[in-house]
Amino acid sequence: MKVAILSVGTELIFGQTVNTNATYLSQQLNLLGFDVLYHYTMGDNPGRLKRILDIAYEDCQMIITTGGLGPTEDDLTKEIICQYFDDELVQNEESLSLLKAYYQQMNRTMTDNNLKQTVLPSKAIPLQNHAGTAPGFWLEDKGKIIISLPGPPREMKKMFLDEVIPRLKSLVKDFLYYKTIRTFGKGESSLETEIIDLVHNQTNPTVATYAKEGECSVRVCAKGSSMEAAELACRRVIDEIKNRLGEYIYSYDDEDLVQVVGRKLIERSISISSAESCTGGMFAERLTEISGISKVFDRSFVTYSWDAKEQVLGVKRETLEKYSAVSSQVALEMVKGLYNITGSDICIAITGVAGPLSDGDNPVGLMYIGVSYKGEIFVEKFQMRNIDRKWNRNYAVLKMLDTVNKLL
Amino acid sequence: MKVAILSVGTELIFGQTVNTNATYLSQQLNLLGFDVLYHYTMGDNPGRLKRILDIAYEDCQMIITTGGLGPTEDDLTKEIICQYFDDELVQNEESLSLLKAYYQQMNRTMTDNNLKQTVLPSKAIPLQNHAGTAPGFWLEDKGKIIISLPGPPREMKKMFLDEVIPRLKSLVKDFLYYKTIRTFGKGESSLETEIIDLVHNQTNPTVATYAKEGECSVRVCAKGSSMEAAELACRRVIDEIKNRLGEYIYSYDDEDLVQVVGRKLIERSISISSAESCTGGMFAERLTEISGISKVFDRSFVTYSWDAKEQVLGVKRETLEKYSAVSSQVALEMVKGLYNITGSDICIAITGVAGPLSDGDNPVGLMYIGVSYKGEIFVEKFQMRNIDRKWNRNYAVLKMLDTVNKLL
Repeated sequence: MKVAILSVGTELIFGQTVNTNATYLSQQLNLLGFDVLYHYTMGDNPGRLKRILDIAYEDCQMIITTGGLGPTEDDLTKEIICQYFDDELVQNEESLSLLKAYYQQMNRTMTDNNLKQTVLPSKAIPLQNHAGTAPGFWLEDKGKIIISLPGPPREMKKMFLDEVIPRLKSLVKDFLYYKTIRTFGKGESSLETEIIDLVHNQTNPTVATYAKEGECSVRVCAKGSSMEAAELACRRVIDEIKNRLGEYIYSYDDEDLVQVVGRKLIERSISISSAESCTGGMFAERLTEISGISKVFDRSFVTYSWDAKEQVLGVKRETLEKYSAVSSQVALEMVKGLYNITGSDICIAITGVAGPLSDGDNPVGLMYIGVSYKGEIFVEKFQMRNIDRKWNRNYAVLKMLDTVNKLL
Repeated sequence: MKVAILSVGTELIFGQTVNTNATYLSQQLNLLGFDVLYHYTMGDNPGRLKRILDIAYEDCQMIITTGGLGPTEDDLTKEIICQYFDDELVQNEESLSLLKAYYQQMNRTMTDNNLKQTVLPSKAIPLQNHAGTAPGFWLEDKGKIIISLPGPPREMKKMFLDEVIPRLKSLVKDFLYYKTIRTFGKGESSLETEIIDLVHNQTNPTVATYAKEGECSVRVCAKGSSMEAAELACRRVIDEIKNRLGEYIYSYDDEDLVQVVGRKLIERSISISSAESCTGGMFAERLTEISGISKVFDRSFVTYSWDAKEQVLGVKRETLEKYSAVSSQVALEMVKGLYNITGSDICIAITGVAGPLSDGDNPVGLMYIGVSYKGEIFVEKFQMRNIDRKWNRNYAVLKMLDTVNKLL
């Protein structure tokens, strides 16, 4: 089935917001076996939206819109779609009671302009918003399908996963099975080179690689007359990828590295604590994203300055002076100090130069990770080839997580 | 002048690449006083590209394309544009000699498929690529303008800045001035209610509100015969918005809250340290995004468990037992303990329930922030109306930053 994605929002057309919604929906729809032909983006403008609906339905049977469903005056998507389908807006009771419940749960009073949100085209099925207040809807008429989702990515994604995908699956004839294999430690082009024959020669399953902030994924996706047939087709190729890239793979189920690490720590009751310099608390912050992590994670020290390293962790002043803060010696003393304080099963410390500027002694991107586990202490050195502070800090945390994952 | 942006690339329509080009061009074009009406995105498909050219020129006098100018087989943008304008592709000598010089400079041999890149429509002016090999071009015919740029963002941006902007400036009559006002502490619909008359009654400047993860922005944008005239038109409305929303505004220059806080701390040499429970290091991590923050930020403690709060910060066990970890009393003892250790000008501590599950004693979203500054210590309580862990943690950090900002 051919699909067009319509993104509505003046902030998009003004260039204030990057249109990640269209990218996300394209990815998901392709995986489900739909053909996305176009993305159309326009401001909150009734005439243009109407025009694009006409144009898009000339080639596509399905349109997915994002944005313009909110409670404010410029949110017009619903009205225009309603006119296009010769329908009328009516109070949707199901949607209203869901929104009331949402406000009750939040212990907030619903304002009148929120009522506007639960008014939907009479032929529409409401789609519940589990992450906000604007409901979406699904409307089918005269062989055309329109699915309207809210603009904020968090709300849109949740609604798409919970409310749209189950309904889309009934439209697809073939069963689709896919796995996303997550890797760390190898760049995209080098990773692709290892499996280029699989990427080129496969039509079912298809194999594709994706780069994402220092990580790389391989997606294997097959269609079949049954789910079992589709899975079987994937399985053979996944085994081959495992043979070639095994050491870099940390998940076959599209889990984040922090989820994998957090899950293993909790399952095995292995306690962990951290001492961070250049990452500024990002390691602890990521780990504490995991619900239930308090079972194994009890504290972390962000020791940014020399004083902090000395006073909190007991790093010797002379070590700092002799080797600089970004050195194997300091990483070692940091992790030793950390272990003396916390006694955690795994202690991990990091010191490095995040950039964009050098610290005067060391190049940007140089990092040392100190680790203690089961009576052993070691330091890993690595050098990133990037001067971007954000990228380097993120990559450093991934590297810390990867190090912990390999211990487990 | 009305403009459409056409992004060509199968990777965009497959959702493998986020379309940042359209965002960048929109931003730039709006600043220059052009009206961007649509973004169109499609794969490397001749039929669809031809169709969208027809559609786009119905409303727009100018089209900017990105992508499809490269040397490989699927790069078809140029051919289709040539057909559309009834033109023919000819070897462009200027472009060829530039490309030859580029290869020479790089000390590389030019391969044959690179020749294809210097073939341009006969009526086109070549646009030099200072960051890659595919030249762009500018073509004007029968009142229509088309500007074709390469797909890779780095090449596209450089070409746009160096080669396109100087040519565009001669086309613009109006000057555009805009300001983005950032606020915290008021939801979008409630904020809009306060300035709804300005949103409705203004055409120059225009006023619009945008929500973004717990924050809200107001954009004021005016055209004028000179930059001064446009600025003056904005100024009057900005003053009125300041009157009404002043207490919620933290930036008139589209700065992030953390940038504002970081800048003020650094400028005034006010030292800060933090003790975090539910936010797990996110406050420290955000603050250390700011380059140069080491001047005022020296450490942070992530005290997740009762033990950590007791051992690191000296929170009394009986306080934890009597009032629970999420209490005004514990927040107070955390910040006192923190001050005893660091003596920072500002000490800030947070304890709360991030969710999604309650801690047994307290509702999800309940937070206490303890602050000490200039000899005063106080605790702020707030209750978030969300059960999403990520959202709550992010909002809690914004609340901490907002609290610090109000002290400064």
